[in-house]
This record gives sequence, structure tokens and C-alpha cells, in this order.
Amino acid sequence: MNKIEELAAILLKQHLTMGTAESCTGGRIANRITSCAGSSAYFKGGIVSYCNEVKHRVLGVSADDLITYGAVSQPVVEQMARGAMRVLNCDCAVATSGIAGPGGAVPGKPVGTVWIAAAYKDKVNSQCFHFSSDRIGNIELSAEAALNMLGELIAPK
Amino acid sequence: MNKIEELAAILLKQHLTMGTAESCTGGRIANRITSCAGSSAYFKGGIVSYCNEVKHRVLGVSADDLITYGAVSQPVVEQMARGAMRVLNCDCAVATSGIAGPGGAVPGKPVGTVWIAAAYKDKVNSQCFHFSSDRIGNIELSAEAALNMLGELIAPK
Repeated sequence: MNKIEELAAILLKQHLTMGTAESCTGGRIANRITSCAGSSAYFKGGIVSYCNEVKHRVLGVSADDLITYGAVSQPVVEQMARGAMRVLNCDCAVATSGIAGPGGAVPGKPVGTVWIAAAYKDKVNSQCFHFSSDRIGNIELSAEAALNMLGELIAPK
Repeated sequence: MNKIEELAAILLKQHLTMGTAESCTGGRIANRITSCAGSSAYFKGGIVSYCNEVKHRVLGVSADDLITYGAVSQPVVEQMARGAMRVLNCDCAVATSGIAGPGGAVPGKPVGTVWIAAAYKDKVNSQCFHFSSDRIGNIELSAEAALNMLGELIAPK
């Protein structure tokens, strides 16, 4: 089974619904999930919050945290994941915020820096990745890592 | 130039921002747009409203219209496009709602039936398409048609 099929099997077995909050992946996670027939059984929807205004207004990310820590940060990506669960009314969610490149690097955050969060009930796992591919490659690697993180978080222990 | 580059040029020249409201395309339009470097200059974000609850709660589609006309209908896709402009605070938006297949067909709406709307200021253009590819093909054709419709709507006459 590929990653999507594995995740779908875990979601379906536990009767869980999921959602997404995507910045740097720009809809690629939702696109990968909905490319599979039958995904409407567990996928409720996603927010592509490409600008900070949408992160704040739609997902409820703190405007202060966006200024203090920047969009590519642990507090922001965790709030995006929790915001997706609330706004989409789903059981679990993944969120991504990073710099796919080729532009967008800032001091301390080179191209390929991506924060990813997975949330389920009151738990949120987040991790910073450093990918070194081109724009499309970094988007794909981020989507794959996000699917992995969500699968690990919700898999029965 | 490909479709995305053409659309980007029109948006940039007129200093317009755009957003998306996707059901059957499931994030593929946002994914195609954000695959291009520089898209943050005009793309504010998107809502993947895969279930009716998200169409109603996030995009403001009338619950009565979802029941009366069904999700794959002109009133619903037009409200999705207007909802995207409002929620994402952007100048123009595209919306899709259809049956990518292989399942999901209902009487009068076979697989491949897709309603698409493009909205800009107070104008909304909508059209029903009948694609005859497989799931992935129908998603791609829908995304392509949506980008075309938005480009035609906002292009200077």
C-alpha cells in the first residue's frame, strides 16, 4: 500500500475524519488525498492558507505569533492544525508552513525549511524539516512527511 | 505560455488577487497555481470544501440550496465562488463541484458532470461540463476549464 492507502485504512478503521491546513504545500496534500476514489468517506476538506491574512482570519492563528515567530514556525503550524480541526469540524488534521523556494528564504530559514504539524484530539506533534530539492520536490517531500506524521499520530498503539 | 502563466500575467498586470473553492478538484487548482514560483503575489488561498458541511459552514452556501439542487449545481457552485471571494478577501475566485468518478453518479448527473463558476467583482460566470475521462483525467480537465474561465472573465476586454 502507498502512504495514502495506509492512512485511509487507519482513518476508516477508526471512523475518523481528517482535514488539512496548507501553506507551502499549497493544496498538494488535499489533491493527493482526493485523487483516491472513496476519499469523501474520511476527508472533509482543507484550507490553503497561502497568505498570513488567511492563516489568521480563517484558521484563527494569532496575529501576534505571525509577527513574533513568522509564518514558518512551530507555534503557527500547530495553530494551523488545530484551526483546521475546528473550522472543518474533523477529528484530525495536518498543517504545513515552509519555504518551497526558489525565493522566500529569510535569515535562519533557508529554502527547504518546513514546519509540519499533525493534530488529533488534544495532541499535536510538530517537527521542522530541512529539504534540499527544488520547489516541486520540496512540496512533494513536505506532503509525504505530513501524511506520515498524521498516520503515526492516529495509528492504534 | 501555459494556462497558469497566462492567468498569472493577467492577475499581476491588473494587481488582482485570486482564491479558490474546490469540491471535485480537491485542491488540484490551488496545487497547480502554487507549483509556480511567485504565486504568492496573487494567490491568497483556497477552500477545499469536499463535504457539504464545509460548503455551508465555511463558504456560506445555502443549506436549503444544497438540499434542493444538490452540491453539483449552478446555484451551489456560484455561491462557492462568491463565498471564496468573501472568506479569502480576494478580487476574483473559481469554484468547482462535480462528480469525478468512478462512483458518485446520481440520476441526471453521470460521472464527469462538473459545474464550474468564476467570479470577479459583481460578475459570476458558470457553466456545466460533461467530461468523459477517468477520475484523475476529470479532475485535470476540470482544473484546466476553471483556469480558462477565470482568465476569460478577468482579461481586459
